Amino acid sequence: MTAAGQRIDVGVLGATGMVGQEFIVQLQGHPWFNLAWVAASERSEGRRYADAASWRLRTAIPAGAADMTVDGCQPGSAPRVLFSGLDSSVAREVEGAFAEAGHVVVSNARNYRMDNDVPLLVPEINPEHLALLATQRQARQWPGLIVTNPNCSTIMLTMALAPLLPFGLRTVNVTTLQAVSGAGYPGVASLDIVGNVIPFIGGEEQKMETETQKIFGRLNGNRVEPHGVTVSAHTTRVGVTNGHTEMISVGFDSAPAEADIVEAFRSFAGRPQEAGLPTAPERPVEYLDDPYRPQPLLDVDRGRGMTVTTGRLRKCPVLDYKFVALGHNTIRGAAGAAILNAELMKIDGLLG
Amino acid sequence: MTAAGQRIDVGVLGATGMVGQEFIVQLQGHPWFNLAWVAASERSEGRRYADAASWRLRTAIPAGAADMTVDGCQPGSAPRVLFSGLDSSVAREVEGAFAEAGHVVVSNARNYRMDNDVPLLVPEINPEHLALLATQRQARQWPGLIVTNPNCSTIMLTMALAPLLPFGLRTVNVTTLQAVSGAGYPGVASLDIVGNVIPFIGGEEQKMETETQKIFGRLNGNRVEPHGVTVSAHTTRVGVTNGHTEMISVGFDSAPAEADIVEAFRSFAGRPQEAGLPTAPERPVEYLDDPYRPQPLLDVDRGRGMTVTTGRLRKCPVLDYKFVALGHNTIRGAAGAAILNAELMKIDGLLG
Amino acid sequence: MTAAGQRIDVGVLGATGMVGQEFIVQLQGHPWFNLAWVAASERSEGRRYADAASWRLRTAIPAGAADMTVDGCQPGSAPRVLFSGLDSSVAREVEGAFAEAGHVVVSNARNYRMDNDVPLLVPEINPEHLALLATQRQARQWPGLIVTNPNCSTIMLTMALAPLLPFGLRTVNVTTLQAVSGAGYPGVASLDIVGNVIPFIGGEEQKMETETQKIFGRLNGNRVEPHGVTVSAHTTRVGVTNGHTEMISVGFDSAPAEADIVEAFRSFAGRPQEAGLPTAPERPVEYLDDPYRPQPLLDVDRGRGMTVTTGRLRKCPVLDYKFVALGHNTIRGAAGAAILNAELMKIDGLLG
Amino acid sequence: MTAAGQRIDVGVLGATGMVGQEFIVQLQGHPWFNLAWVAASERSEGRRYADAASWRLRTAIPAGAADMTVDGCQPGSAPRVLFSGLDSSVAREVEGAFAEAGHVVVSNARNYRMDNDVPLLVPEINPEHLALLATQRQARQWPGLIVTNPNCSTIMLTMALAPLLPFGLRTVNVTTLQAVSGAGYPGVASLDIVGNVIPFIGGEEQKMETETQKIFGRLNGNRVEPHGVTVSAHTTRVGVTNGHTEMISVGFDSAPAEADIVEAFRSFAGRPQEAGLPTAPERPVEYLDDPYRPQPLLDVDRGRGMTVTTGRLRKCPVLDYKFVALGHNTIRGAAGAAILNAELMKIDGLLG
Repeated sequence: MTAAGQRIDVGVLGATGMVGQEFIVQLQGHPWFNLAWVAASERSEGRRYADAASWRLRTAIPAGAADMTVDGCQPGSAPRVLFSGLDSSVAREVEGAFAEAGHVVVSNARNYRMDNDVPLLVPEINPEHLALLATQRQARQWPGLIVTNPNCSTIMLTMALAPLLPFGLRTVNVTTLQAVSGAGYPGVASLDIVGNVIPFIGGEEQKMETETQKIFGRLNGNRVEPHGVTVSAHTTRVGVTNGHTEMISVGFDSAPAEADIVEAFRSFAGRPQEAGLPTAPERPVEYLDDPYRPQPLLDVDRGRGMTVTTGRLRKCPVLDYKFVALGHNTIRGAAGAAILNAELMKIDGLLG
Repeated sequence: MTAAGQRIDVGVLGATGMVGQEFIVQLQGHPWFNLAWVAASERSEGRRYADAASWRLRTAIPAGAADMTVDGCQPGSAPRVLFSGLDSSVAREVEGAFAEAGHVVVSNARNYRMDNDVPLLVPEINPEHLALLATQRQARQWPGLIVTNPNCSTIMLTMALAPLLPFGLRTVNVTTLQAVSGAGYPGVASLDIVGNVIPFIGGEEQKMETETQKIFGRLNGNRVEPHGVTVSAHTTRVGVTNGHTEMISVGFDSAPAEADIVEAFRSFAGRPQEAGLPTAPERPVEYLDDPYRPQPLLDVDRGRGMTVTTGRLRKCPVLDYKFVALGHNTIRGAAGAAILNAELMKIDGLLG
Repeated sequence: MTAAGQRIDVGVLGATGMVGQEFIVQLQGHPWFNLAWVAASERSEGRRYADAASWRLRTAIPAGAADMTVDGCQPGSAPRVLFSGLDSSVAREVEGAFAEAGHVVVSNARNYRMDNDVPLLVPEINPEHLALLATQRQARQWPGLIVTNPNCSTIMLTMALAPLLPFGLRTVNVTTLQAVSGAGYPGVASLDIVGNVIPFIGGEEQKMETETQKIFGRLNGNRVEPHGVTVSAHTTRVGVTNGHTEMISVGFDSAPAEADIVEAFRSFAGRPQEAGLPTAPERPVEYLDDPYRPQPLLDVDRGRGMTVTTGRLRKCPVLDYKFVALGHNTIRGAAGAAILNAELMKIDGLLG
Repeated sequence: MTAAGQRIDVGVLGATGMVGQEFIVQLQGHPWFNLAWVAASERSEGRRYADAASWRLRTAIPAGAADMTVDGCQPGSAPRVLFSGLDSSVAREVEGAFAEAGHVVVSNARNYRMDNDVPLLVPEINPEHLALLATQRQARQWPGLIVTNPNCSTIMLTMALAPLLPFGLRTVNVTTLQAVSGAGYPGVASLDIVGNVIPFIGGEEQKMETETQKIFGRLNGNRVEPHGVTVSAHTTRVGVTNGHTEMISVGFDSAPAEADIVEAFRSFAGRPQEAGLPTAPERPVEYLDDPYRPQPLLDVDRGRGMTVTTGRLRKCPVLDYKFVALGHNTIRGAAGAAILNAELMKIDGLLG
């Protein structure tokens, strides 16, 4: 689609953190985007990227990134298109400053997600929400713009639920068993997780309950009308490196047949698949017949970390059905999600 | 109550397994019961107990038990009162044979639990179910008898729910994060659990859904009418040694105030507490205010493993409330449960 | 020995950290010492102890300590005898200030350990090193004093080696597999340890190599002549909560018989055992015959965490023998060690 | 080298076990070998491979293998070249029968490793040992042959030590921290490893001590003269999925400079690299400067699992130097090792 020489220069805000590192890996060899700039907090500014980042990924640090000099998080020499893995303590201010300075900010931070004029995007589910950007431009008078992806646990949930929307989804009960990489680095203390479970993740349950309604919402003029689905979440942390497992119960207006749900999982696809976006998995949702699956260790890498794997569909005595879903929290749940967002924006002419 | 010299001799069926080992530890120094006999499968028969058992508990093997000779699982030299930690593959036949030979079998196995004439007992909840034994005696013409305790996950659930029954409990959705000790030894392969989650435990969900109704059922003449509560369970295995964590949502006919539920947890007590049974915890259910609790590593030993700890009570958007419960699966969920059953039977004159 | 009403008031410096918490637990119900004062950094000053400490121990926070108000780490209202669980970044200055103000500081910090006039004490091994205090008093002109215990890995090593000293111990090669509690809280990041090994612990190897020589050293006039044993250590961190495992090879001037070593382990005892100090384990070193032992999960609590357990003694092709040792790093390796030191000082009239 | 249509048909003995599964993955898309046959025990015979194998690898089961029918372990329809992942309880008999029936058996089992006429091959180290096959043919009168690779822990050790041989290596002390995948499936019980360490692996230490001497031995006429290096091993199991970590101390006739050892690690190569064998890593041994590396989670996949990573070289007070080595136990330590052996045999004309 784009010749190698014409790749779009991109940068990463918060490049030394866990999400930032995953951005660096996912952008390596990207056919459309060229990593040209990395920025982080003052502590890292001016240092060689490989020295500033406590590299924590299995994939070795890409040679091109290792020798980059880390810049500060101020507009100036940054390219127009930026991925943000900033911490929420600074993201609102910094991302806003970049949008005001004319940058396209494709953010993984939570700060702008629920703002009325900011798309909370999952390309397979609500690509039309990009239309909110017209409102955003008008309301904020930014020459740039901000687009967000959901919280990692919400993405897995909405990917697993989206195939069920046509059946009249009404209620959802979900318990998560979340990986430690979702908490960044150093994040969760090992004393809290070795042979243990933490039954609480601050703010996570509310995010799942409200973000889901916005993602599934209908675009109505210049705003998104939240979907009427009611979600209740229990979120826990377990001793897993990568992969959030979710135990989901669902209730419908009128319950479909079991086979229809399996078929809906397996045939689910959206604009990323139609357009063949580089980061899009061939099958965004898989369904496995083995009752012992999906498991984080065995299934988290499906579709290069972009597939959400489901299994164990069965009747639920309280709601209608229950099943399991699993996804890679730092790829489909963070860096990969944002890059897929940017790819969708590219074919919609929004990176121009 | 009973002088040391008058302690009742008891034996353990399946004494070398994990539940059997926990029986040996829990009976050590028991004021009413004296461990006098251990039995296991043919492989162990005739061997010294300490040699036959692959001892897997933190508490050292009690000196008195270590030198016992393991007997086979046939009536004969066995004392009248027996605790059974037998595997379900043999429990129906073996326990039946012992009851037929005049023994009181206090069993942790699942085989007889749902039989109409067998008490499925949790002393704090349904001590009156022991009345089923009259039916059992008549129906089976056994000179002995069989009493059972529930599955480990069910016990934690029913202990946490029992305080809520007076509020008109209608529906329950629960996801478990279960410890590996619940699967016996060798049980779960380490390759399946190191850094992983297994989203399925065979038969466990159905047990939780049906046993709960029987435990909460009303004794009506010679049978138990199942309680109308609807339970839906998701059961998973995680890398924890001891302690099942359960994420529970509950719906009521008419929802009580939050403070009333907390008060109900904290004031819950039953016949074991009234009678001061030796194994009864002072507080069968605790409620912690810290949102990060209960945790297996920190809370599993409360009440010497007999207390179920709850926390994080909050509104549920789908049902009425949600909260967390935790209990020790091999003590309150198995050996301790059976011993508490026997203690109740003792004061009710059923061990005579 | 001392009537309850005459217990000695003691305080804890660094009371909110992991070692501080273990001090609080180990002092609970102590027959000689009465916890009367807790101090920590400015962040905790003035707060209720239970609120200031992120309590991380299985044993519940003792009621008496929970409601204490945390003081700052300045002399003033502190009792004369203080246990220090201070971080090494501040311990030299703070402990020195307290000694200068007349306090007896029984410290777990590393800062003063290798000072010539400071005893590095293991009561079973070198109780006579307390004689260094005369030098200390003269040299520093402190009205108070400072006594230290070794690094947690060093204590396990020296306890396991002390029984072998009479055979002419010359060389030691040791690899440790250390628990995460040894790194404090939050300490090791879970991303670094879930399903992983960290092959480096900063400064630990050198401590093992030099502290061992001082502990085994001969008191010569007013100084300790380091023992000539050569120690080489590899130190690693593994996903264990409590319990350092050490794989040890030893070389002798002239190698003893295997049975003599086992006998030396089993019969090892010192002044704490002779004097029946309250915290002294009956058997400071145990030897297990089972080749799969000792294991952290099963053996760490022996002797209420004060026993070092050994096993697997066998010939070493390079040195003479090799074996395994295990000990509880926050009890025998830290808080319990310091309390045993104080008990020894008490009977030697040094707390007066 | 070989056209796709001319790939050599190969089979796998013990194809359903953990090593067998790794063979299937490593052979997928192999340029020289074509997986044409899978065999396992009677229990699996006649079943579809995907149904017979409890697939436990992250890489999905290759489509070509999934639908194969599992054969029994008898010669007959098997191709000439066979990889063996058989359990040692049956390997001597079964592999011998296949060699007697004219097959080339490239084995990972331990049974024939120390036989005088069987090469114990590490292609980077002792490719010339293949000359033993002439002796083997003469001695056994087999129309086929057997070649073996070392125990997984031995391979990592010898790969890390081979670069040091030119300096006059004399003594080695090594402690391993081994992954659970090395024990097969189900293998190690999770109760033994969650939050724990097992300080013993049956037979492992002796294998490391004797196999190393044979691997480094000099071919002298029709036999291998064992190398004079003395090895002492402590072997332990830790909660890691893949990757054996080894803490190694080495003594030399005359110790080289530190920089020379690092250079030796980094420049080490052998016939696989010279010949560009398909499975050969570009760098068989890497040396990392970061003191916290190598770590299993981060470094085990280097060189597609065929590189042994070293680090932390420093002086040893007892021997001369000490350092850390890490390798992938089921790839470089098993299936990848055997396939590299077969590739070497191919270019040496031994598969013809």
